Amino acid sequence: RPVREVLFFPCRPCCLEALLAEAEAEAAPARPCPCPLPRADTSLSRLVRRLLSARRSLDLCIFSFSCPLLARAVHLLHRRGVRVRLVTDAQYMGLQGSQIGRLRQEGIQVRHDQHSGYMHHKFAIVDRRMLITGSLNWTSQAIQSNRENVLVVDDAECVKPFLEEFERMWEEYNPT
Amino acid sequence: RPVREVLFFPCRPCCLEALLAEAEAEAAPARPCPCPLPRADTSLSRLVRRLLSARRSLDLCIFSFSCPLLARAVHLLHRRGVRVRLVTDAQYMGLQGSQIGRLRQEGIQVRHDQHSGYMHHKFAIVDRRMLITGSLNWTSQAIQSNRENVLVVDDAECVKPFLEEFERMWEEYNPT
Ligand SMILES: [Zn+2]
Ligand SMILES: [Zn+2]
Repeated sequence: RPVREVLFFPCRPCCLEALLAEAEAEAAPARPCPCPLPRADTSLSRLVRRLLSARRSLDLCIFSFSCPLLARAVHLLHRRGVRVRLVTDAQYMGLQGSQIGRLRQEGIQVRHDQHSGYMHHKFAIVDRRMLITGSLNWTSQAIQSNRENVLVVDDAECVKPFLEEFERMWEEYNPT
Repeated sequence: RPVREVLFFPCRPCCLEALLAEAEAEAAPARPCPCPLPRADTSLSRLVRRLLSARRSLDLCIFSFSCPLLARAVHLLHRRGVRVRLVTDAQYMGLQGSQIGRLRQEGIQVRHDQHSGYMHHKFAIVDRRMLITGSLNWTSQAIQSNRENVLVVDDAECVKPFLEEFERMWEEYNPT
């Protein structure tokens, strides 16, 4: 059954602890989170669910990545053995609050553009066959305050060009 | 035949005079443009072609709109009798180089958000059935210098939620 999902933001606050705990293979059964936020089905929980569905690879191409929760989800996948590659923008990765440095320290491969223009994409490809793309930067501000869209599709006509663009950038931004 | 087109930017410089002249019903046969740029099939020319295919309506939801060429294409559609509606961001519409004021003066209906967060969408809907969406703001900088994507699709499962989001914003941002 083809995947076609459209998510809009801003997203009402919700607790994703149970979702993340469930996804950790080694985790003990999830204890109820003490935070006052509801466990709800929101655009953010749906986005995180799509990311956590990765079994083999996650190719990320994110202009601005400062949301700690999405960084946790990516780190979780990395620990689970999913091959994570991250392309980002040279200027934005240095800004305060960016999660890029931390993800790198955790062992995730990161490459960035070398140009004056922005690497302005905001897309993810799960297992080389599901594309998650849109206007949403991976920042808490965008998730909580902006009007944003994310489209999730798995038809090859859409996914393949993005995969090729990702591989082009991955090679082009190879520092060695 | 379903529409599935993926466009990447930056785009090499090209001359769109012939394309725009062709689209003007009243235009005399296009004279060759004196500019040195090649007439080429580029991501920008493809984007403009998709926009110019509008016959009845063009619903625009653009965070940052400063590209004069895309403003010309929108104005051309307005003159041709296409119903153009434009939703944009309150803060970015006031920036230097924004085309919003000019489009308004030309008679195009514009509404903007009233919130502290950004209206960060960058999508267009042609004739209520073709969606053009992605990371690309409608600025010359983005077109010429950034790495950006635009996805053009016409399946109802993608288009309908965006149409509904547009109508929600159009009502919500009604100043009266
Ligand atoms: Zn919680
Ligand atoms: Zn020219």
